[in-house]
Amino acid sequence: MKYAVKLMYDGRRFSGFQVQPDSRTVQGELTERISDFFGCECNITGCSRTDAGVHARGFVAAISPKYESDGCRLTVPGEKLPRALNIVLPDDISVIGGCVVDDDFHPRYDAVWKKYTYIINDTPVIDPFENGLVYNYRSPIDDSSLEMMNVAASYLKGKHDFSSFSSVRSSVENKVRTIYDISVTRDDKSHVRIIVKADGFLYNMVRIITGTLLEVSQGKISPEMIPEIIAEEDRNSAGFTAPAEGLYLTGVGYTKEPDFRIV
Amino acid sequence: MKYAVKLMYDGRRFSGFQVQPDSRTVQGELTERISDFFGCECNITGCSRTDAGVHARGFVAAISPKYESDGCRLTVPGEKLPRALNIVLPDDISVIGGCVVDDDFHPRYDAVWKKYTYIINDTPVIDPFENGLVYNYRSPIDDSSLEMMNVAASYLKGKHDFSSFSSVRSSVENKVRTIYDISVTRDDKSHVRIIVKADGFLYNMVRIITGTLLEVSQGKISPEMIPEIIAEEDRNSAGFTAPAEGLYLTGVGYTKEPDFRIV
Repeated sequence: MKYAVKLMYDGRRFSGFQVQPDSRTVQGELTERISDFFGCECNITGCSRTDAGVHARGFVAAISPKYESDGCRLTVPGEKLPRALNIVLPDDISVIGGCVVDDDFHPRYDAVWKKYTYIINDTPVIDPFENGLVYNYRSPIDDSSLEMMNVAASYLKGKHDFSSFSSVRSSVENKVRTIYDISVTRDDKSHVRIIVKADGFLYNMVRIITGTLLEVSQGKISPEMIPEIIAEEDRNSAGFTAPAEGLYLTGVGYTKEPDFRIV
Repeated sequence: MKYAVKLMYDGRRFSGFQVQPDSRTVQGELTERISDFFGCECNITGCSRTDAGVHARGFVAAISPKYESDGCRLTVPGEKLPRALNIVLPDDISVIGGCVVDDDFHPRYDAVWKKYTYIINDTPVIDPFENGLVYNYRSPIDDSSLEMMNVAASYLKGKHDFSSFSSVRSSVENKVRTIYDISVTRDDKSHVRIIVKADGFLYNMVRIITGTLLEVSQGKISPEMIPEIIAEEDRNSAGFTAPAEGLYLTGVGYTKEPDFRIV
């Protein structure tokens, strides 16, 4: 028996998704509260290991008993999980959908694409309701700079070795990923939004893409330099790593989409 | 020498606007930080005494030296105040405009209208990014209930004694106020917004109006009972007091509007 749930979480008070000793993590909170709820040890797996301070709207996690042989039974109908779990979860995690899935479903390995959104406030005015929820860049980005960012972004699209856009702390061997879509748009007067959809992401990839595109807006990097930066396969060639606070996981797709419901 | 500033603040970590001993208040933070900034004691007056947990977008405050005779000089050009003060203010207060005003300007006594907005999430799903920023009512309000709320609201419009809509803890003698505008609208799938514009407000007035309109949506109070509830001039006749967290001061108007600027 296995559930999939769709989650939102506010990353501000979490040391990221993945369990770590002595730190408050999303996986840690889910494991503890959901195990308590069902009265038996549960395994929680997630679609992504978001970093400390990174947020999510549409994160997919799976819930299964650790030892089904112990008589551990997950007895709530899938569509009733959101209401049930939201009672026991902390107020910075919210379950927005749930369903029963095949036992072999894995939220990370089965994902065929993921989408991240990076939100930048480019005005000098800081909205106190957005502390830790956007990157307060403070330097206005004009229309022609925004257009330059989009030209630069278009060079990132497609299948490339993204070593230049990966933290040096990454231990992954294969750094080839395919970006399906990338866009830089102005939401409203005060916010610029960078959306990247890819088959997978390297450590800090969206934050380094964002930093690089911001350096394009500053004229430090020309859009035409992007193919060269990719080719160098060297983290030092790309721009700075934008802070975690502006980053949201905003979607994940599967060949066989779980049938999330809410009652 | 006197400034007027326009502010936003996130009320979650404040015990309201007005200075109180041993409590973190907006007025307290402003007084301390701005006095430090100018190097002399300053008086801060506000357009409203918002309660603990109440938020503001467009709050007007005035800044003046406490003892001008001491050589206390406010030397920053009004339009540069936002940038300057945002450096020294805590991250849950933001200055979004500033200007020099006449010495006799008073943000509260000179206000000719104020506007409050109350935000309700009426879905069972709680958005973790909105904790303390909306009232999670959890009970969906359908279109016909929303229409009933608007009919009820229309009876509140105009000049009335609003004693029934004032906290019993209020010490104000004259409870006659004029509501210029009141509307109940659905913003999007998950949010209902009640906006009230009046020449002045009694203690808890918008929160009691909101609670009463929610009881109208539940069918506990019929819209046609509103004139009677007003006429009774008794707090017990109206509905419950909705919680502070959904309430925002969203505007204040003056006959001679300060010329707020930002550079």
